[in-house]
Amino acid sequence: MAVQTAESTTESVAGSAAPSVDLGPAAALSCRECGHRVPLGPVFACQECFGPLEIAYDFSDHDTEELRRRIEAGPANIWRYAPLLPVPADVATKPNINPGWTKLVQADNLARELGVTGGLYVKDDSGNPTHSFKDRVVAQALEAARAFGFTTLSCSSTGNLAGAVGAAAARAGLRSCVFIPHDLEQGKVVMAAVYGGELVGIEGNYDDVNRFCSELIGDPAGEGWGFVNVNLRPYYAEGSKTLAYEICEQLGWRLPDQLVVPIASGSQLTKIDKGLRELIELGLVEDRPYKIFGAQAEGCSPVSAAYKAGHDVVRPQKPKTIAKSLAIGNPADGPYVLDIARRTGGAVEDVTDEQIVEAIRLLARTEGIFAETAGGVTVGVTKKLIENGDLDPALTTVVLNTGDGLKTLDAVADTGLTATIRPNLDSFREAGLA
Amino acid sequence: MAVQTAESTTESVAGSAAPSVDLGPAAALSCRECGHRVPLGPVFACQECFGPLEIAYDFSDHDTEELRRRIEAGPANIWRYAPLLPVPADVATKPNINPGWTKLVQADNLARELGVTGGLYVKDDSGNPTHSFKDRVVAQALEAARAFGFTTLSCSSTGNLAGAVGAAAARAGLRSCVFIPHDLEQGKVVMAAVYGGELVGIEGNYDDVNRFCSELIGDPAGEGWGFVNVNLRPYYAEGSKTLAYEICEQLGWRLPDQLVVPIASGSQLTKIDKGLRELIELGLVEDRPYKIFGAQAEGCSPVSAAYKAGHDVVRPQKPKTIAKSLAIGNPADGPYVLDIARRTGGAVEDVTDEQIVEAIRLLARTEGIFAETAGGVTVGVTKKLIENGDLDPALTTVVLNTGDGLKTLDAVADTGLTATIRPNLDSFREAGLA
Repeated sequence: MAVQTAESTTESVAGSAAPSVDLGPAAALSCRECGHRVPLGPVFACQECFGPLEIAYDFSDHDTEELRRRIEAGPANIWRYAPLLPVPADVATKPNINPGWTKLVQADNLARELGVTGGLYVKDDSGNPTHSFKDRVVAQALEAARAFGFTTLSCSSTGNLAGAVGAAAARAGLRSCVFIPHDLEQGKVVMAAVYGGELVGIEGNYDDVNRFCSELIGDPAGEGWGFVNVNLRPYYAEGSKTLAYEICEQLGWRLPDQLVVPIASGSQLTKIDKGLRELIELGLVEDRPYKIFGAQAEGCSPVSAAYKAGHDVVRPQKPKTIAKSLAIGNPADGPYVLDIARRTGGAVEDVTDEQIVEAIRLLARTEGIFAETAGGVTVGVTKKLIENGDLDPALTTVVLNTGDGLKTLDAVADTGLTATIRPNLDSFREAGLA
Repeated sequence: MAVQTAESTTESVAGSAAPSVDLGPAAALSCRECGHRVPLGPVFACQECFGPLEIAYDFSDHDTEELRRRIEAGPANIWRYAPLLPVPADVATKPNINPGWTKLVQADNLARELGVTGGLYVKDDSGNPTHSFKDRVVAQALEAARAFGFTTLSCSSTGNLAGAVGAAAARAGLRSCVFIPHDLEQGKVVMAAVYGGELVGIEGNYDDVNRFCSELIGDPAGEGWGFVNVNLRPYYAEGSKTLAYEICEQLGWRLPDQLVVPIASGSQLTKIDKGLRELIELGLVEDRPYKIFGAQAEGCSPVSAAYKAGHDVVRPQKPKTIAKSLAIGNPADGPYVLDIARRTGGAVEDVTDEQIVEAIRLLARTEGIFAETAGGVTVGVTKKLIENGDLDPALTTVVLNTGDGLKTLDAVADTGLTATIRPNLDSFREAGLA
């Protein structure tokens, strides 16, 4: 299977595997397709079959209760799970922006509106340092970059990832260089540029940016460059596991019955599943069934379309939706998402841009959480899944909000004043506000 | 002394003191000027001398180590300090947005740039639910509103406060009604309106809005309305104490030597001082000297001007600065701020808009923290105080960032691409990026 990640179409560069890399429990890279193992290094595609490489761990010789105690005594960020991540044991002492341990909000008001009786929670990742879940994955890539001796942290991006990379590199004292299409909106440019790294506009569209990044990785000019979501992707992707860990720990070391997860490349959903299975294997949660539901915007719904058609492969789409952080038309992990949704008894569903906006408003009005469009997608899909009968309202359900409404203000730009009055009580009364 | 709060010029309404209000350790309201005590109620000005009322506590009969254990075992938000706040003991079980326990970032990179050797920390309140410290104060006002049976949470605002009130009320299931000047920028309107409460534009300027709110409080139409920063102000203001508590606990139950705090109304700075003194009195930290420094923008520097002139009173100014969240020309607590700065051996200083922007960039570049203009003020003032010799770089220093850069993007709007290239390696090399 060819590796087609959303942000790169390159194949593996010759992996200069570092011989004595300390990335904690990470033992090797293992091909998801053929199982071929290679030493830890800045490579992402299997040399045998071009399948995606992921981290293989050595969790042997662990004591479950000792591990639980260690986690609970850890810091209030993702590094409480350092024993389960591809990072050195002393990671928490290194300068980084320490994402994670975001709120799991018990959403009783939203539950009432949606008719959920079994407990509804919103995992709110807008509380991360740069206000999106990307801080989790970039933090892992940063540790890998340090381990491999990279001096520049890089990525292609059109939004959340640029800020996460810029902030992480600034604090870590690494150079950063982020590539974006040259004609991005000024607001997004500012958010990416403020951390003081290189911000390079590419004359071309997002595909051109990605093609260029792939070329750079294979060139001597790219030596010492860690592209978080390309040559560091196996490490980067593991950051999403921390969402699964936190949700279970915050529920009192218990698996939720149902999770609703957004799909961009599909990586987050597959790694949340991986995280849940690890917790079961390690004995940290009781093994019982859970269902994972994938959420897409109708304007970019290749996985949802494949799910509904009963296909195993995903046909690429040209994205056209306000949910730009999910707008990956050719999601690399699409087939794995389909497999997980079907295996766990979940589903994949999509909602229109109108429903996304409605869901943003619903979440804000009921729980005081102002979500990015991606959060509108998951909340909207949750509503639809309940109406369809796919999601059981009597079961404990966790919905992910992966970003912050301040970054996608345009989506609700028509929200305005409910009244305009003159500064006196008569005008106040006339407006019916008393 | 007449009460002149920034957001209201009204005098106390007849305080309908609730007889059996449970607000935890809050015992009464006490006049800061004459010490006159009245029962807990929705009043804010002394009936004897018009001085500001603040909460008087009954902390007798406490066991220091038991209290410390209770706090440390508490939730990762402000409610870990419930025994020290005007809130019922079961506050953490009620629906609210649970602000606080934000990161205290050890800012070694910034310290190096500023020449601080004694330890420099940034208390980063952009991590609060609506991304400003206002969530802390609104959370207290919400509990008071519940205790007094109010059904509408209200305020006048031009920014951060509107979002904090809207979000808190939404989650608590209260009605909210926020008053703003009718011609605010669209972005700010959206941020305030998204939570679904009433958002009323007043035809007039911010002073007109405040005058109207005062009128409404005194009118039967305002019955059942809790204005967080007017008739609930004594409760509201206590929220700032939690910044002091968190800083000390996060330093290992230790007072910092120096704090740099922004000044708007001056309430935050005075309550941080109150919080530090309480920790000393309760035996939770060792009693040793600390210095509090106040930070203003030059374009709105009435307290700084009074400090430098050696005055005890503050002459109002007409604000003109990009630091809009600090732009209170007639700060109610100005005299108290002057007193605290002088008593503790601190100072009050101000910086230009240019220095504010430079400081925002400095903090982002060194620590990956994107601060609001108010954060630019405190970081810029810290730099200036060190250069002046007022702040000792060999002592432990904590600088407050009270808001999020995403809310004041305009301040750094000229931040842009460092290069634009064609999507090929030659163009990359030509730009000197290799």
